[in-house]
Amino acid sequence: MKIRILAFALLMILSCLSPLRADQPLTVAGVLESSKPEDWRRLEQDRLLYLELPVGQVVFELAPQFAPRHIENLRKLVRQQYFDGLAIIRSQDNYVVQWGDPASEEEGARSFGDAATSLQPEFYRKAEGLEFIRLDSHDVYADEVGFVSGFPVGRDGQRAWLAHCYGMLGVGRAIEPESGSAAELYVVTGHAPRHLDRNVTLIGRTVAGIERLSALPRGTGALGFYESEDQYMPIVSMRFGTDLDDSARVELEALRTDTQTFEKFVEARRTRREEWFVDPAGHIELCNVPLPVRPFNK
Amino acid sequence: MKIRILAFALLMILSCLSPLRADQPLTVAGVLESSKPEDWRRLEQDRLLYLELPVGQVVFELAPQFAPRHIENLRKLVRQQYFDGLAIIRSQDNYVVQWGDPASEEEGARSFGDAATSLQPEFYRKAEGLEFIRLDSHDVYADEVGFVSGFPVGRDGQRAWLAHCYGMLGVGRAIEPESGSAAELYVVTGHAPRHLDRNVTLIGRTVAGIERLSALPRGTGALGFYESEDQYMPIVSMRFGTDLDDSARVELEALRTDTQTFEKFVEARRTRREEWFVDPAGHIELCNVPLPVRPFNK
Repeated sequence: MKIRILAFALLMILSCLSPLRADQPLTVAGVLESSKPEDWRRLEQDRLLYLELPVGQVVFELAPQFAPRHIENLRKLVRQQYFDGLAIIRSQDNYVVQWGDPASEEEGARSFGDAATSLQPEFYRKAEGLEFIRLDSHDVYADEVGFVSGFPVGRDGQRAWLAHCYGMLGVGRAIEPESGSAAELYVVTGHAPRHLDRNVTLIGRTVAGIERLSALPRGTGALGFYESEDQYMPIVSMRFGTDLDDSARVELEALRTDTQTFEKFVEARRTRREEWFVDPAGHIELCNVPLPVRPFNK
Repeated sequence: MKIRILAFALLMILSCLSPLRADQPLTVAGVLESSKPEDWRRLEQDRLLYLELPVGQVVFELAPQFAPRHIENLRKLVRQQYFDGLAIIRSQDNYVVQWGDPASEEEGARSFGDAATSLQPEFYRKAEGLEFIRLDSHDVYADEVGFVSGFPVGRDGQRAWLAHCYGMLGVGRAIEPESGSAAELYVVTGHAPRHLDRNVTLIGRTVAGIERLSALPRGTGALGFYESEDQYMPIVSMRFGTDLDDSARVELEALRTDTQTFEKFVEARRTRREEWFVDPAGHIELCNVPLPVRPFNK
C-alpha cells in the first residue's frame, strides 16, 4: 500500500528538488530553475490592475497593444473609483466569473463620469507590428497560434487577437459589438472557450490570485448569475498599480516569451520527461502552455 | 447605459425562449428543444457512482467499456464502504480535485479488504469493437477524436482512450503504471490536461454536481494539496446507484451521441448562429462539446 502515492505528485516534487544537469533530460521544473534573470521581465505597475476583494487581491496584467481604447476607458473608470462597492455578479461553472454594476440596467445605475459608455470593438488588430513568437502546433481555432509579450495569441494572415485561455480578462458586451465599455469585466475560469475569440474584446490576463475568482460559489441563476444580493462578492476597490502605495503593490516578473528558455520550457511541456509519464504527448496546445509568473525580489 | 446588458446573456436567454422553426438557423438551444425523447438515453444506476459530501451530491457515470478492471475494483472498494469517512485532499487550480485516504502512506492506512492494491493500467484499449462517432475536427493531441456512448474519446489506428476533458473522472497513480487501484480518484476541474491522456486510467465523467468539487477552496500546499486536516472536505459516503434507496438516487438522461440531433448540436456549437456572435468560429474542439445531461422524468 505504501506505493500508492498521491497521484502525479511525487515525481513533480522530486524534479523540483533536482537542479538541471547537462546530462539530464529537460523537465519543466528543470528549465525554470536553470533560467537566468534576463529571461524574466518585471511587470510594470502601470499595466497592473488590482481587484481588491474582501477575501484578498486579484492582479491582472493588461495588454494595451491589443485593446488600447478599452484599457484607456477602463483607466478612466478606475480613476473615478467606478468599481468600488460594485460586485461580482456571476460565476458560471467551467466558463467565466463576471463583475460590474448589479444595477446597470436600472434607474440607480452608477454614472460612467467622463468614460465612454460604448466603444469601437477591439476584437482583433493588425498582425503587423507585433513580435509574434509562433508555437509550433496545430490549433483547432486559428491558422497560427503563439505568444506576444507573454499573452496567448491567435493569428491569420492579416489579423492577430488575444486567445480565450484560462485566466484571460475580457470586456462583457451586449448584442451590439460596440456595447462593451470595460465597465463590466469577466475572467475565463474553465476550459478555454475559444469560440469567443474575435467576438469580444480581451484586455489582459490574471497574474495573481485567480483562485479568489475561480473558487467562488457558482451562481444558481441562468448562465451562473447570482440570484440575490447576498450572494454577490463585493468589490472593495479596483486600482492601477501606479495609484497604489508600495505596501499595497505586488512586484512580479513573468518569463519572457521571446527567449530560448521559454522555447525549452514549451518543449519540456510538449514532451514530458518526468518519470511519471509513460507516453509523453509530443504535442502541446496553446492554452496548455502556462505562462510563468513569480514574485520579483529587488 | 440601458444597452449595457450583461455579457453573453441576453441573446442566449432569448434563444432559449424561442422554439426552433424550420426557417430559423440552428442554435444550440433550438436543437435541444427540438430533440425527441428517443434522442436521450437514461443513465443506468448500475453505472452511476454517488459521492456524498456534507455540501451535497456529485454523480459520475462510469465507462466500463474503457476501464473494466478499475471499475470492478472500485465496486469492491465501494461495497465495503472504503471511502466513507475519507476526504478530499487536493484542489489544484485549473487542474484537478482529488480524494482518497489521507493516511494512505502511513501506519493507519485503511484496508483495501478484498480489492486489489495494484492493477494493470487501462490507459487505452483496442479501438475495435467501439461505436465511435467521429468529430469532424482536427485535434492537437490525437489522430482522431469523437464520442463513444457519450464520452469524449481520442483514437489512433489501433487504440482508443478517454480524453481528459473538464469533469472527467480518473484514477490517481504513483510512478509505477500499475500503482493505480481506484482507491484514489480525481476529477478534471480546469482546462483539459490532454497530456495526461494514455498516461493514467480514466473511468468516467461527472454528470451532476461538479460545482461541489470545482468551487472548493484551492489547496495551499504544493500541487494544490491541502496542508492540514481542517481543510479537508470529508466524504460522507460513496455508493453505486443500485445500492441506494429510490429517494437518494437521481434519475438522469444524456443526449445520445449516435443521433442526428447530436450531430446538429455539434454543428450549432461549431458555428454559433445566435445574434451575439459576430464571427462564428466554424471550428469546434473536442472538449468544447458539452455532453448534455438532464433530469429524467418518468
